[in-house]
This record gives sequence, C-alpha cells and structure tokens, in this order.
Amino acid sequence: MAEDALVIFTPSGKRGRFALGTPVLTAARQLGVDLDSVCGGRGICSKCQISPGYGEFPKHGVTVAPDALTEWNAVEERYKSKRGMIDGRRLGCQAKVMGDVVIDVPPESQVHKQVIRKSATERAIAMDPATRLLYVEVAEPDMHEPTGDFERLAIALRDQWQVEDVEADLSILRRLQPVLRKGAWKVTVALHKGNHDARARILDLWPGFHEGPLLGLAVDLGSTTIAAHLCDLTDGRVLASSGLMNPQIRFGEDLMSRVSYAMMNPGGDVEMTRAVREAMDALGRSIAAEAGVNPTDIFEAVIVCNPVMHHLLLGIDPVELGQAPFALATSGSLSLDARDLDLISLNRNARVYLLPCIAGHVGADAAAVALSEEPGKSEEMVLIVDVGTNAEILLGNKTRVLACSSPTGPAFEGAQISSGQRAAPGAIERVEIDPVTKEPRFKVIGCDLWSNDPGFGAVTAQTGITGICGSGIIEAVAEMRMAGLVDPGGLIGGPEQTGTWRTTPEGRTHSYILHDGTAEGGPRIMVTQGDIRAIQLAKSALYAGARLLMDEMGVEKVDRVTLAGAFGAHISPKHAMVLGMIPDAPLDKVTSAGNAAGTGARIALCNVAARDQIESVVHDIHKIETAIEPRFQEHFVNANAIPHAVDPFPELAQVVTLPEVSFNTGGSAEGGRRRRRG
Amino acid sequence: MAEDALVIFTPSGKRGRFALGTPVLTAARQLGVDLDSVCGGRGICSKCQISPGYGEFPKHGVTVAPDALTEWNAVEERYKSKRGMIDGRRLGCQAKVMGDVVIDVPPESQVHKQVIRKSATERAIAMDPATRLLYVEVAEPDMHEPTGDFERLAIALRDQWQVEDVEADLSILRRLQPVLRKGAWKVTVALHKGNHDARARILDLWPGFHEGPLLGLAVDLGSTTIAAHLCDLTDGRVLASSGLMNPQIRFGEDLMSRVSYAMMNPGGDVEMTRAVREAMDALGRSIAAEAGVNPTDIFEAVIVCNPVMHHLLLGIDPVELGQAPFALATSGSLSLDARDLDLISLNRNARVYLLPCIAGHVGADAAAVALSEEPGKSEEMVLIVDVGTNAEILLGNKTRVLACSSPTGPAFEGAQISSGQRAAPGAIERVEIDPVTKEPRFKVIGCDLWSNDPGFGAVTAQTGITGICGSGIIEAVAEMRMAGLVDPGGLIGGPEQTGTWRTTPEGRTHSYILHDGTAEGGPRIMVTQGDIRAIQLAKSALYAGARLLMDEMGVEKVDRVTLAGAFGAHISPKHAMVLGMIPDAPLDKVTSAGNAAGTGARIALCNVAARDQIESVVHDIHKIETAIEPRFQEHFVNANAIPHAVDPFPELAQVVTLPEVSFNTGGSAEGGRRRRRG
Repeated sequence: MAEDALVIFTPSGKRGRFALGTPVLTAARQLGVDLDSVCGGRGICSKCQISPGYGEFPKHGVTVAPDALTEWNAVEERYKSKRGMIDGRRLGCQAKVMGDVVIDVPPESQVHKQVIRKSATERAIAMDPATRLLYVEVAEPDMHEPTGDFERLAIALRDQWQVEDVEADLSILRRLQPVLRKGAWKVTVALHKGNHDARARILDLWPGFHEGPLLGLAVDLGSTTIAAHLCDLTDGRVLASSGLMNPQIRFGEDLMSRVSYAMMNPGGDVEMTRAVREAMDALGRSIAAEAGVNPTDIFEAVIVCNPVMHHLLLGIDPVELGQAPFALATSGSLSLDARDLDLISLNRNARVYLLPCIAGHVGADAAAVALSEEPGKSEEMVLIVDVGTNAEILLGNKTRVLACSSPTGPAFEGAQISSGQRAAPGAIERVEIDPVTKEPRFKVIGCDLWSNDPGFGAVTAQTGITGICGSGIIEAVAEMRMAGLVDPGGLIGGPEQTGTWRTTPEGRTHSYILHDGTAEGGPRIMVTQGDIRAIQLAKSALYAGARLLMDEMGVEKVDRVTLAGAFGAHISPKHAMVLGMIPDAPLDKVTSAGNAAGTGARIALCNVAARDQIESVVHDIHKIETAIEPRFQEHFVNANAIPHAVDPFPELAQVVTLPEVSFNTGGSAEGGRRRRRG
Repeated sequence: MAEDALVIFTPSGKRGRFALGTPVLTAARQLGVDLDSVCGGRGICSKCQISPGYGEFPKHGVTVAPDALTEWNAVEERYKSKRGMIDGRRLGCQAKVMGDVVIDVPPESQVHKQVIRKSATERAIAMDPATRLLYVEVAEPDMHEPTGDFERLAIALRDQWQVEDVEADLSILRRLQPVLRKGAWKVTVALHKGNHDARARILDLWPGFHEGPLLGLAVDLGSTTIAAHLCDLTDGRVLASSGLMNPQIRFGEDLMSRVSYAMMNPGGDVEMTRAVREAMDALGRSIAAEAGVNPTDIFEAVIVCNPVMHHLLLGIDPVELGQAPFALATSGSLSLDARDLDLISLNRNARVYLLPCIAGHVGADAAAVALSEEPGKSEEMVLIVDVGTNAEILLGNKTRVLACSSPTGPAFEGAQISSGQRAAPGAIERVEIDPVTKEPRFKVIGCDLWSNDPGFGAVTAQTGITGICGSGIIEAVAEMRMAGLVDPGGLIGGPEQTGTWRTTPEGRTHSYILHDGTAEGGPRIMVTQGDIRAIQLAKSALYAGARLLMDEMGVEKVDRVTLAGAFGAHISPKHAMVLGMIPDAPLDKVTSAGNAAGTGARIALCNVAARDQIESVVHDIHKIETAIEPRFQEHFVNANAIPHAVDPFPELAQVVTLPEVSFNTGGSAEGGRRRRRG
C-alpha cells in the first residue's frame, strides 16, 4: 500500500501528493488552495466544506476509491444535525486523505468568494475585507515564563494565523483577561489589517468560537442624500440598503452655499459637521434595525463623498475649497476610528476608511466611480458622468484618464424646479408628449401604468400626483423640444405657435401644463419657462465639463457613455441626448451604472486590495479645474441651446436633427429676466 | 587657487574635501558630523553654531588662513545682536568653506548632546528623544497638480528632513490649512517617531519658526508616591522635579490591599483608575506651573510603575495579579495617547510610553532600574535592590540577570511603625546609640546638626521632632542591636538587662525611648517591640528575595550592592547590613543609585533607542516568582534574626559578628501576639 496519495483540487486544478492521514484542509493550505476556515481546522466553523468526487476522472487520470477519505465522523455528524450540510459534502478539517482523490471547493467555501455585482457592466468583487474573525487557542500563563495574556494572544495569532504584528487599544486590553478565562483560553478576535505598514489591530473579541455577524457599511455621502449599504463582510451580501436626506441641506442646498455658510458664520462649519455626523450615526442605527442586526456588529465603514462633504465630515473648515486654488486639507485616503467621527452606534473600535480625493472639486465619490467603472481598463474611450448636485466627469481609456467636476446645481434632482420634488411616490418620473396632438402622458413613481392606461387613476389615488422629479423634468423638457413646443433657444411657444391650450401664458412667458389636478384638490403640474432655463444651465454645465475633457484628450467623440449616480440610473439616455446633456454617442452605448460611487465604496469595503488600487489610480488620473478654465465658459455658453432630437427608436441608434423651429415673441424670457434684475 | 578645501571637524576628527563655497553645515551633514539644526540651514534656529580655529594645527597637518570661511554676514549679525552669540562662534549654515579649515562643534551644537547624570555611577544620556521640532517650507497648492496641503507637508518633511512616512490625526488636519497660510507656507511641526515600524506622527504645528519649549515628563508612579521630572526634550535639562502622594492609598496602603479592594468592591478598580489618573494629570499641571511653563508644551510622558499600578493606570482590573499565576494583561511596552489616560492637561496629542513589565510581580519600575543601572553590562556580580512598599531585586552580571520582587510592606517607609512618619521636616532620619552609655543621638530632616550639638534645639524648634522616618527606624534598630539593647532574635531587653532606663516596660515587652518631647508638648518617640518585629518581617522578605536569586545564580556572595529607590538613597549601608537587609558585601561596594526607576524613565524619555534596548533587556531577564517558591519561605524564616554587626568604620570594610546576647523574658512578644490572636 502506498504511503502517500494524490490530491487534486478543483476548480483550481492544484495537485500534490500527501502522506496518508493528511487532513484535506492541510493539503489545501500547503498547495495554496483557496479553502476558507475561521477556526483554523478545529471542526467548529464549518467554513471548510468540500465536495469529494468518487469514481473515474479521466481528465485528471485518477480513479477515486470510495474509501479515499476517512469515514464521516462525529464532528461532521454533529454539525450536520445541528446546522445542516448538503449531502456529499465533508468538512475539510475532518476528512483525511487515504487514497488518490479529487476534491471540489464549492464557491461558498472559498476565502475569496466572488460576489457578482448586478449592474450593466457586471464585475466580480473578490472578498478580502480588512476585518476578519479569527479563532485562536492561547497558551495559558506560566509564572515561570511570565508574559502578558496579550503577548500570548499575539503569539497564537502569529502561529495559528500568520499574523505577524498585532496591536490592541486599552478597551480590548481591559476586557482581555476575563474573556480569555471565560473561553478557557479559546477566543475569537475581530482582526483589522493595517493599511500599508501599520500593524494589525484587534477590534473586538469573544470567548470561544464566535461566528459573527461581521458587518460593514458602504456609505455614499452626497450633498443631498446619504445612502448606505449594510454588507456582510464574510460573503459580501447586502443585508439592507437605506438612505436619508443630508441634514446640511438647511445650511445650503448646494456645496458652495455651505462653504459660504461656513465663511459667513463663525462656527458654521462645526454646526454642519455635527449635523452630518449625527445623521450618519443615525443611518448606521436605522439600517442595522432594518436588517435586524446589532449596530455594534458593524466593524467597518467605507465612505465616499465630494471634497466639501469630506472636509465637513472630518471637521475641517471647507473655506479653502470655495476659492482658487481650491486646496484640500488632505487628499489622501484616511483610516480613522469611527468614534473620531462620532459614529458611536457602531462597534466601539470600528474603523472608517475614506477614499482619496482626486482634486479640490473632484472628490472621493469620483474616485469610487473610477474604482467601480474602471475607465483606465477600458479599450474604448468612455465618458462617465456621475450626476448629482455636482457632476463628476471622467473621460478616458487604458492609456489615460481625465477628471473634472462641473457645478450643475440641484435642478437635475428636482430642486429649483417649479413643480420639482425628490424622487418619491407620487412624483412624475417619465413623460411622453405626442408630437401631433401635443398631449402628454406620464408615469409616476409607485405605479407601473401610464397616465392614459385604464386604472391609472385608481392606483395613483393613494399617493396622488404630487410633482415632478429629476428624471421627469429632463424627459418633459426633451419631449417638449421634440414635440416642437420649445425652440432651440429653450423658449416655450404660446398657444398660437404650438396649437395647444397647454402652453398657457404666464406673465411674459408661457408654461406647459403637464397635469392639472386642481379639480381633485391636487396641484397643477407645469413646466415653466424658468424650469427650462434651470435645466438649460444644468445641462450646459454638464456638457461643458465633458467637452473640456474631450478637448484635453483631443477627441471629438466618445465611444461609450456611462451615467452614474442614483439619479443617473433613472435618466433616459435618449432624452439626455435630446437635451444635449451629454455628447453624442450611439444610443446603445449609453448605459447606466446605477450608484457607481456606492458600488465603489462597497468594493473598497469588501476588498482591502482595492484600496491600494484606487490610491494608485487616483494618483494617475489627470485633473482639470473647470472653474478657471476659459474654454469651460465658452463651452457652457455654446451648450445653452437644445438643438437636437433623437429618433424615438433607440435600437436604430440613429441621431437625427429636427428641422429648426423658432418662436418669435415680443420680449424674450432672457430679456424679461434681465429687466427684472436691473 | 584650489577649487576645493580640506574641512576637519573636532572633536570627531571627521574630515573631507569640499568645493569652495560649501556651507559648513552641508559639509558636516555629508560627513555625518553631529551638528544640530532645527531650521534645516535657513539661518533661523542658530542651533548649528560652530567654533572655527585659525592658524597652525600641526596635529591635523593644516594651516587655517584668516579667510578660510566666508565673512561674518548679516544673518549672523542679526542673530548675535538679538539673541547673543559667544565671540568667535559662527553659524554653520551661513559660514562657507573658502580654504582648509578646522571646525570645532561645541557640545551644545551637537544633536545628540550628552547629559551627565548626577548619580553614584555617572552615565551619559545621549539626547535622541522621540519628539523633535522640525521647521519646513511647504510647496503652495497648484490647482493644476492638485494635492492636499497635508500631502505637500509630508513631501516637504521627506525632502527636507528625510522623514519617510508621516501621519496626523484629525485635530492636526483641522488646523493645518490656517496655520500654513498664517506662516506663509513655512511651518514648524512637533514630530513623534513611531515605535518599531509605526509611522511618524505630527503632534502639533505652528506657523513659521517655533523654537519650543518642547517638554517631556518622566514619571515614577509608585504605590505610595508619584514622582515626576519635567525635562526639556531638546537638551535633557530637568526643569522641575515634583511629587505627590498616590491618592490610591485610601483604597489600601500596599498593592495587595488594593487588589483586594478591586476584588471586593464592584467598580473598585474603576475608582482607583480615576484617582490615579486625576493625580497624574494634576501633577503634570503643577510641575509645569513650578517650572513656569505651559503644560500643553509637554508632548511626551514616560511612566514606570509596578504591575498593579500599571494595570490600574491603564484601567485594567488587577485581580489576576492577586493570585497565581499572576498573569499580566499585557507585559510589553505600550505607546498610547495621553488623552486615553485622561492626562488632559498635557498637549492634546501628547504621547505616553510605558516601559515593559518583567513579570506579574516585577514591573516596569524594575525594568527602568535595569535600564538605569545596567546589571547586564556589569563585570561584577551586582545586586540591585529597589526598596519601596514592594522591593524589586535584580541580580546579575554580563552573563545573566535575574529578577524578583519581594513583599516588604510599607515598614521601610515608616508606615506601620509606632512613631513612624513619611520623610519630611521634623522626622528623625539618622540615629546613633553609644554602646557604653546606651544614650542616643539623632538628626532630623531639615537640620544638619546632631541632637547633642549646641544649637540643635533652636533649629528644630520650628519643625519640632515629629516622628521617625524609614531610614531612621532602620538605623535605630541596627544601633539598638549594636549597643546590645536587642538580642539576635529581635527582643528588646528590660532595664535590668540593658542597664538603661530608656528600655522601659510596655505591656509584656519593652520599648526604647529615643526622644521624649512631652515636656515641650511634643511626642515621645519610641522604638517598640512591635516596630522591631515589623522591621524584621520587612528585612527578612528583602533578604530572602536576594538569597533566592543568589541560589538560582549559584553564588554565595555578591561583589556589589546598589540600593535604589527614593528611600534607598537615604539608607545607611552599614545599618542595612547590620540589620541583615542585604547580603554581606564590602561596605565600600554598597552604593546608592538614588531614584533609579525615575532615572530609567528619564533615559527612556530622552533617548528613544533606550526603549528598544530595555525591551530586549527585559526579554533576556530571567524572572523568579517568590510567592510560590518554597525556598523563599525558608530563607524568610531563617532571615528573621539580627545576627550581625558591622564595624562602625566603613573604610575598613570589615564585617564582624558581635558576641551573642539573648534576653530571657517571661513571655516572648511572639507568644504574646499569638495569644492575643487566639
């Protein structure tokens, strides 16, 4: 009888000969096979489940006998009866090699599990979070060889988990002795990898074996909303997603008004810091409640945000970001204690990672988009636009990536629009206008029917039709243009020009009545001349930023456009292009990446290597400052018109230009505004 | 004319040839000559003062011409007129080499200034503190190459000071932008070197050039007293020394009663932690006030203490230290933020370093003694005894060092003694008893006269004669033994045996009247039988610990004895040996090291390399646990007697044994005590 046997692991194909009696987990470790184990092979954690194969394996040239592994044992039986295990599975730490064998490592037993992102461009996140749970057996104290309990724990972590250098703060040292004794010198620690050359740090510890939960928060801290995903750090699952309004809104809707508030009000920055930290902490609490978990099981948060929010969260006066040269106090990534940001509902020792900022106007949110969308790995020239109150714009391919930000203002989010509102049930989000009858139909959030479908009224009776959100106003303006209700300069025609009562005079200009709910006590929802002007300003800023990057890159067109941001997910590419928000591109090459900044945060949360990656990516991105670039102004002015229309059938991917129509009125809206100001 | 010149630095003797026009500071740096500079050669700090020599230098084989350096310049003139400079001195950053020259670096211009310790075994401390002040010029922000202000500061520190990797907490990041702008992009930072591989950390910063002060605290946190030195971290000067009682005394006089208090009273450890932290913080404030400086200029504290104080300071329940196996929560050195120990009067970002503990009963104070006294570098076999409420004992030479601690109790500090008191004005500290007349004479603290000197009464009238302190009681007992008033068993004879009225009956035993101040309304100061027993217990414990180490080392005698501790500084070696506190050794080989633990703390404060040194020394020390060692009990019982007397002339270094005297009394004190207990 042979004294060793061949062990082949799939899907990796790694193979080697091992002495009979070698546990499968040991063989996997020696071959560098990616087989998980939290308890270090003690039959406690059941993470090392494997699927042995029996019979003929011609591809591998082996035959596996039924007794190739030791028999099913009591540890496995106990686990299966208590927690359940798929038939045919074994525990890698219990099953020992007794003959040639082929062993499959199922995906959920891999340390670096792959979590599939559900987005237009699917990409796997390899799980390798900064914080892990490690079970260790610590040597008991010996008064003849006196060392501290902590030092023996450190030795155990080194010997059992190859963690070389470990530290713990006073809160852990304080609890260490009773926990070790309660667990009879067996303990589970939550260990946080240090950045760069920093030491690993013990964040928490439990007597005996502790299975979790081990949770993390990925937070997209926007000017208007704060959105978070609560993730399981062992498998990357999103347990809950939640959001709330940024309470700083009361200090100013857009970033520059908040900077002004800080400049004009001594202590104003401190007020805003307190507000956003309280909101973030409340969000941590509420998202944990939503998922039915304890917020103290949250050990990490990754935060992405624009530079002003970045500084206000850190408690840094953002005044320098309001004036050239827009100097950041710090641009690098930051690793902090959560309690230093007053995130006190999380675990006492929870860590926070902030992605690096790209420039004074291009923040960690743009860095997160770059991490998620990877323009620097693209063969095609891709334009990525993260639309929010500020738009972050990235342009590039594998040779070079440029970035800028553009002050679009909050119009795209429904603010500063006469009937504007946040995207919420009752808000009009889709609009179509018949080019012949000029009659509209629309959809509201919370109802799948069009407004002219039977039953629409019954469904919407509950929420009402309350206003128009960002995507709705974009579609409305674009549809008005395509229906000939608006001329290229953005002027709404009167009834005599448009042939419909819906373009009704309002002062010196006209408004388009999208929906009149006054009969039922609801609002009259209109698109006013002022709304059109606000959208024109916003879209011109966005377009000018993109054009500026194209100039710098030396290209006249882009191959692909990615719309990111929670709002970007809802923009209709066709209408965006009709409006001239984005440069022309084949319609099938305009896609939405959803909340790419949030996805970037989630990647950095689940994979610590991605943090190093984004730091080098950010270093290589070339930044363009729009605020002082004369060509930006030029592009901005030139982009004011709404000259285009796109064929309503996107599958044709054909861009057509409508015949120009232009309304001749007594006094232009611009003129009227100028007079009012004078 | 030559294009380069020979530059010779003294006292190092380093030499090299440099292009004409090279600043002396540059030449010194290139040769590795130890020439200080805080401002990096900008003519601001004046730390780089040098003394050029002119004329013939036969030893170096050069002649220095009067124009060997460039002329005295405006920067030097401005500094000299404003701040003063010794004639003949130049600033190394201003004077440039124009010919062969010999340049002396005066001691105060060396980076690693040598500070001489004033103690029995003088030893120099090379100044190399963990925290330094560094002046840097930071690049201004450029919006076309956007980086954070902090990142540009880090680059400046790397380029100008070779500091590779630097971090700063939020409090620094928050202040960075206004400070940089106020200083016109010139800034001085207090930079703290990281331990091991940790990053350097910015503790504070000031606009422009900031000269200091840069202060540190060396703290000896004892069971009974807390003593601190306030040191200038640039030159090692002690600006003030101060102390106060450890407020934990109200929870128990000795360590084990404090451990018991923690065990018996839930939250008792928290109370004690709060008490000691508040006292430490108050000490920081008061010592700064004494020196006329601001406590926020204190950037570092080094703390040495025994294991129980160590745990109580850190907020760790010391319960495990009260029972075998006496496990420390952590034995390694610790680097902490001062605010984590509630030392809030120091600089906000001040750091604290705690020396490592040697074992559960042998603390960081013993480690500090080892750092100060360096038994591991001794050729002779040296016994080091740090006498306090607990005695720490080290024995060894360059081949091996052993350590233990021994529970002497507070008798040596005057506690549990009938007339005992703390060492303070009015306390009897020296005693002599005439072997013939049996009459005593004594000295009290605050008066240089003996009690039988003319004028003694006048001097002591102010303070009174209030009691007897630790060194006084030791001398009194030893003198009583040498005068035949006490037998080898420790029994005080009655008047019929001693022939003096001063050994007066008191219950079943006798007391010796040292001083009767009742006529003047003062106390009657006696040595009672109970006092003798207390001293016997204490000295037996001390002796037994030393003997145990000698057994382990396999030696019957030691070459040298060092008495350390504030109290050790006042013990008379002769009397200590008469009592049998310490093993026999030639009297001239028994020396005092003063507060060696405090000195060790000061060394670790002034020299960061000493921290690494002590960590490896502690690792190599072999620890003996007295509490469970049967031979300790045996030695303890055997050491109870007071068998020896030493010739009163120490220069003869001769140990003689007195003829045995023994008093036969009706009932022994021991018997009496036993009966009282029964």
